[in-house]
Amino acid sequence: MFSLHWLDLFGTIVFAISGALTAGRKRLDLFGVLMIAAVTAVGGGTVRDVLLSRYPIFWFMDNTYLWLSVAAGIATMLYTRFFRPPRTSLVIADALGLSTLTVINASIAISYGLSPVILVIMTALSSVAGGLIRDILCAEIPMILQRDIYITAVCAGAIVYLVLRHLGLHEILYNTITMITVMGLRVAAIYWDWH
Amino acid sequence: MFSLHWLDLFGTIVFAISGALTAGRKRLDLFGVLMIAAVTAVGGGTVRDVLLSRYPIFWFMDNTYLWLSVAAGIATMLYTRFFRPPRTSLVIADALGLSTLTVINASIAISYGLSPVILVIMTALSSVAGGLIRDILCAEIPMILQRDIYITAVCAGAIVYLVLRHLGLHEILYNTITMITVMGLRVAAIYWDWH
Amino acid sequence: MFSLHWLDLFGTIVFAISGALTAGRKRLDLFGVLMIAAVTAVGGGTVRDVLLSRYPIFWFMDNTYLWLSVAAGIATMLYTRFFRPPRTSLVIADALGLSTLTVINASIAISYGLSPVILVIMTALSSVAGGLIRDILCAEIPMILQRDIYITAVCAGAIVYLVLRHLGLHEILYNTITMITVMGLRVAAIYWDWH
Repeated sequence: MFSLHWLDLFGTIVFAISGALTAGRKRLDLFGVLMIAAVTAVGGGTVRDVLLSRYPIFWFMDNTYLWLSVAAGIATMLYTRFFRPPRTSLVIADALGLSTLTVINASIAISYGLSPVILVIMTALSSVAGGLIRDILCAEIPMILQRDIYITAVCAGAIVYLVLRHLGLHEILYNTITMITVMGLRVAAIYWDWH
Repeated sequence: MFSLHWLDLFGTIVFAISGALTAGRKRLDLFGVLMIAAVTAVGGGTVRDVLLSRYPIFWFMDNTYLWLSVAAGIATMLYTRFFRPPRTSLVIADALGLSTLTVINASIAISYGLSPVILVIMTALSSVAGGLIRDILCAEIPMILQRDIYITAVCAGAIVYLVLRHLGLHEILYNTITMITVMGLRVAAIYWDWH
Repeated sequence: MFSLHWLDLFGTIVFAISGALTAGRKRLDLFGVLMIAAVTAVGGGTVRDVLLSRYPIFWFMDNTYLWLSVAAGIATMLYTRFFRPPRTSLVIADALGLSTLTVINASIAISYGLSPVILVIMTALSSVAGGLIRDILCAEIPMILQRDIYITAVCAGAIVYLVLRHLGLHEILYNTITMITVMGLRVAAIYWDWH
């Protein structure tokens, strides 16, 4: 049904767009916007790789990540010059991006044989770090503080991933259910304004 | 009289509580508070381990640190639901936590054969980094900017540690005197409002 | 004409001064100012070394960097106690410091055989990270958000470096032209208030 690599590239594009949109509202120039887009897109995975001493860091080995970020950044800047940013679709895209990051970070963390509590914290940290770095660089209130059920959605996803995998489900099943968990919690939180 | 490992666990609990208290004042939900508690508790040591290339990072090897942080976070949330946070005792606990971190970080830094100036800066950085990350994630003014004699207390402790150890004192003695130095400077700064 | 090592030490001093000046405007005490000065001076290179897994980190191997930072921090504090900080010369010094960092970070990144897009992003990131850390620790609006043509100047410098080196120019030539590019863009941006 889907491969982790395509999910990863999709998440990269989504977060690069969110970085470019946040940076575009500031006084940053072209390269500034592109750097923030790239840092947002690869920031979480970079924190993960540094903490796991997983060298070379993923975006040094495969420059697709940076090219995608730069392309997404340029496309975002061109788009917002002529149209309004599509707020609703973006919030959905952000939720989808977060759910792909959760699956990817959980699958990498589990390959290191980490115990459950470490795995959940690592997955949460790596999945929200990109957005956090974006908000800190742009002097915005971190989104984890603004939006309800953000870190909880990722933690719930990581726990679901862990349990279903432990129960011996097929990879496609536990990946999909994890994504639906994160996505569902985020979307529910946004639409019903949960607390 | 005391072992470094117990000191370390004590410091972990104190900083997890301070993280949970800071995060609890924000709109963060349960897992958000627990993640901030964990990041505050292990953040400084993580910066230290990454800078020293000391892998695997301490909390990957021994999940006591994260369990303690999570437990301290939950206990803090339950406590503050029914009682007021004990401000004065917390400031004392924070000073005690900072003094234990100073001893632990200095003892690790010295085992890498770093020269004095590097050791003092590394000790200061690793000891205040957890609190800094907490304040940045929670969008608070960093405590190092708010409280007088904070970094100075850690630096003074690191210098005392270095000198006494060089003079050949017994480990228990130089550890204790270092802790008293940091603790004393912090408490004095708080009570007499030193500048 | 010049050696990269001297350039590096010059950049260290300039950024230590900018860190000490920023920290000095806050309530930080002596050691606080010195720690911010040191972190500003070595922060960008530290991020670079961690991302490249280039251990031991440069300032652990050669304590000249920290001693210079501490000395520059003390000198800055003494100077500002009696005189006004020289704003204009500082802005020029900052542009010069940024241009030296660009050359040094590009030359290190290129020795790792990184592809062009990675090299440009890494150079930009490592060159602005020290100032970013300074602004975050001091709770200032990051300078990259305040000043036009900041990240762009570094990226332009990295691209010029890459192209001229690829064309086979002599090291002194491509280093000098890279520096002039960064410096020129920054100074032009400051004086003509470019957008």
